[in-house]
Amino acid sequence: MPTIPFLPYSILMGNLGILCLGLTVYWSQHLLGGLAWDGSHKMFNWHPVLMVTGMVVLYGAAALVYRLPLSHMGSKLPWKVLHATLALIAFISAILGLEAVFKFHNVQKIPNMYSLHSWLGLSAVLFFSCQWLMGFVSFLWPWTPIWFRALYKPVHVFFGSVILVLAIASCISGINEKLFMKLKNSTIPYSKLPPEAWFANVLGMLILVFGVLVLLGLAIPGWKRPDVNSQDVRQVRYYAMMNYRK
Amino acid sequence: MPTIPFLPYSILMGNLGILCLGLTVYWSQHLLGGLAWDGSHKMFNWHPVLMVTGMVVLYGAAALVYRLPLSHMGSKLPWKVLHATLALIAFISAILGLEAVFKFHNVQKIPNMYSLHSWLGLSAVLFFSCQWLMGFVSFLWPWTPIWFRALYKPVHVFFGSVILVLAIASCISGINEKLFMKLKNSTIPYSKLPPEAWFANVLGMLILVFGVLVLLGLAIPGWKRPDVNSQDVRQVRYYAMMNYRK
Repeated sequence: MPTIPFLPYSILMGNLGILCLGLTVYWSQHLLGGLAWDGSHKMFNWHPVLMVTGMVVLYGAAALVYRLPLSHMGSKLPWKVLHATLALIAFISAILGLEAVFKFHNVQKIPNMYSLHSWLGLSAVLFFSCQWLMGFVSFLWPWTPIWFRALYKPVHVFFGSVILVLAIASCISGINEKLFMKLKNSTIPYSKLPPEAWFANVLGMLILVFGVLVLLGLAIPGWKRPDVNSQDVRQVRYYAMMNYRK
Repeated sequence: MPTIPFLPYSILMGNLGILCLGLTVYWSQHLLGGLAWDGSHKMFNWHPVLMVTGMVVLYGAAALVYRLPLSHMGSKLPWKVLHATLALIAFISAILGLEAVFKFHNVQKIPNMYSLHSWLGLSAVLFFSCQWLMGFVSFLWPWTPIWFRALYKPVHVFFGSVILVLAIASCISGINEKLFMKLKNSTIPYSKLPPEAWFANVLGMLILVFGVLVLLGLAIPGWKRPDVNSQDVRQVRYYAMMNYRK
């Protein structure tokens, strides 16, 4: 992978994350009718805000913790705790985001869990709960055997990216669905691209770009924390030992 | 990553790909009203069939070519040609899938390119066209310098997965959108989950599972084609040379 400097990347990601969050809050507050925790449509409007906060921005930040050059020095434990804490706040945000839509549906007598968006979104949150629990038990529980950690780590890394992909696909399908619902009786329908449609379409594309850039950050080999048990390091040790014996 | 046998995986993927395709054809043929290339809604029905064929099933097959154990022996060239050919058929299928929806919209006087699904889907196909061209120029054009191939290869690999993610998110948002449109005037609305909604939701989830399993196949280190220029192999050569000198 061509070398990319980490500092401009992290500044870009910070700004892009804040932009995604800010635009989602603006959409909910000023275009969808405002925010309230009262079972009305204003309660539904917490759903995009909390899901983008939790499943995209905070989740992305948690995923990238080990790419910070500072985290490559010294003990890994504080960075593990930061990773788990950010992921936990992301998870709580997502649960509140689900509560917002379920309570709104229940008060308004709208059925739950019928759209493909809802099936996908709930799958993402359920996988995330398993991922967090398994991560905690495997990497922060001091009595977990090393062989199990080593076996589970690549699974945790792979499913970390998969859950982000599910979250991004959920956001895209959710924004698309909301625009079709909201603008079907509008004076300017979705098909005529009124300003709100432009706004939310651009928001969806920015969320997608954020997600792809998180995946890029995770993929760049030079940004990974050097692993003392990695194949490369073991190979170097093996050859050093062979040379020593000679 | 825990060891998974390749043969059962490839049998599963073959069956899952055929299942996704078969269910999409069934949906278009028997639930959406049939297939025809005539500008009517039957022409639209080619859109899901051709997009799932091209951007999901054939694209996934092309991505996994280098994971076949047979491809790890002998010359890489025939496998490169197979990879490029499958990707080209996938791309042609996607272009025909776009033609189906654009012609249907134009004949029916429906605006093009307004939904987030359409923005995302077109982005996926545009990225795919760049990916194919860059792949061809870099890896099949005999005069491309080796240093450029080496520099571009990880970019090609990363964007290969990204395009699949965009395609999966496009399929999910497209199926979701189509169900909202189709069932809004139905006797049983989408929110009451009529059989067609169940059918297409399950199809969407199966497409997602297929996509995630392609990403899994690409991520398992033991299934990758041993690269003569990889860091590991260079390291082994280096140490062998150092031992030889001693």
